[in-house]
Amino acid sequence: MVVSASPSFLAVDWGTTNRRVFRFDGGEITQTERDERGAASVDDFAAEVAAIRDRFGDLPMLLAGMVGSTIGWRAVPYVAAPVGIDELAVALDRIDDRTAIVPGVSCRTDVMRGEEVQLLGAVAGGMVPADALLAQPGTHCKWAAMTGGRIAGFTTAMTGELFALLRNHSLLAGSLGFDVVDGAAFREGLAEGARRDLAASLFGIRAASVLGERADADAASFASGVLIGSDVAARLAETSFGRVHILADPTLGGLYAAAILAAGREPVIVDSHTAFATGILAIRERSL
Amino acid sequence: MVVSASPSFLAVDWGTTNRRVFRFDGGEITQTERDERGAASVDDFAAEVAAIRDRFGDLPMLLAGMVGSTIGWRAVPYVAAPVGIDELAVALDRIDDRTAIVPGVSCRTDVMRGEEVQLLGAVAGGMVPADALLAQPGTHCKWAAMTGGRIAGFTTAMTGELFALLRNHSLLAGSLGFDVVDGAAFREGLAEGARRDLAASLFGIRAASVLGERADADAASFASGVLIGSDVAARLAETSFGRVHILADPTLGGLYAAAILAAGREPVIVDSHTAFATGILAIRERSL
Repeated sequence: MVVSASPSFLAVDWGTTNRRVFRFDGGEITQTERDERGAASVDDFAAEVAAIRDRFGDLPMLLAGMVGSTIGWRAVPYVAAPVGIDELAVALDRIDDRTAIVPGVSCRTDVMRGEEVQLLGAVAGGMVPADALLAQPGTHCKWAAMTGGRIAGFTTAMTGELFALLRNHSLLAGSLGFDVVDGAAFREGLAEGARRDLAASLFGIRAASVLGERADADAASFASGVLIGSDVAARLAETSFGRVHILADPTLGGLYAAAILAAGREPVIVDSHTAFATGILAIRERSL
Repeated sequence: MVVSASPSFLAVDWGTTNRRVFRFDGGEITQTERDERGAASVDDFAAEVAAIRDRFGDLPMLLAGMVGSTIGWRAVPYVAAPVGIDELAVALDRIDDRTAIVPGVSCRTDVMRGEEVQLLGAVAGGMVPADALLAQPGTHCKWAAMTGGRIAGFTTAMTGELFALLRNHSLLAGSLGFDVVDGAAFREGLAEGARRDLAASLFGIRAASVLGERADADAASFASGVLIGSDVAARLAETSFGRVHILADPTLGGLYAAAILAAGREPVIVDSHTAFATGILAIRERSL
């Protein structure tokens, strides 16, 4: 075995529906692959891990995300915030001597699994300051306050899931099929969402459709604006950070950036894959 | 034909999924029946109306509710608030010389069909004052401000529909199957809902379950409390009425009464069937 400051290893960002595998050599990503073999669709995790080693190399492996939950390989206890790289490294759940799962983080009555690696990686890589507010939009949007480089506390809003429920199953389903775009309807939705009266604002979409006051092509953008606007308004009411660092894909990140700007704060978009890679590398280096 | 101050007639409160038929003789209900032949499950409205006359008597008939919508017999234009009995009576949509549909009411960007008859009937029957705040909890909870006995304005919140979406289709579905009861968990939900941070409060239900901080048997009651609490908080923030008159079945009405009491206002439960009957009778008398 070659010993160096950054020996080769594999890392998996293993979510509910997707996963991304990374191979690191000398501290650099040399191979990566994304697929839809999320924890919810996997039964035999040992076999999956063996298959990853067949494709990426027979190396030590760190797994993060829902793989460590009740729907994953095994349920790894949460580490209570405040949490930094060191706390995660010492709490790794070792499956065998070269395979370990990174624990999730809990905070009062909230939980995360996988997002913690991105959050701590963003700070460890100097992508965000040690004291900062970070947002990770998605099905369940995480908002984390970092203090001294550690996760001090966080809040999860099921903003993306509510949008999917409305689009797929609600009375509004028929008018929410269009793409969400950052235009006038989305901006009107943001203003409406800032009133934090979600159940009434959402019915207003139906009424506007019935009264012919908004084109159905704009309804999805307005609805997204209402949901994101109310998420942003609720979160920013709790914090004095002037800047919000956003870890997300460009589309959803852009919508949140528009919402944060409309709320009078400064959005900064951060590359979430680089943040994850930096974080998992830091955990690996502390746990050798 | 017998002519009197209150000649016999039939009335149908015809909603999306249910309907209730009433026969009035001399101003009194002499026969009533509820079934699940709502507008969404009926194709031939003329045949349904003929069948009702076969069972209840070959009499003039007033229809109210979704029967007058795009999913009903025909779409009757809304009458814009402020609206009283007189405005509804003159705007009846006459199918033939003894069959008419009561129009719905619109207000800025909101709409109702059917609820207007209950609201105006409650005032006409002296069950509520001419200036009052009325709540009609349900799939889509209506909150109406009455001024001088007329509907001055109203807001609809899709509180009940959100609960159904969460119970049937969300990540929380697995833990929301229990009955909602007005106990400690419901009261905790009300307090949480009053923060008006719905998307985050709802994710908190998941986190509490994962962390073992709330028994799953309490999750539905807590979730209902969050939704009703946020509906009540948003609505009461907009009005100075000290008393809220609730038109609903006893179970849902009781939950809203608890929420209104917890918010420091006085709830009064009003019989919604009597309110409808009084309202439709008043419309009938003004339209003879």
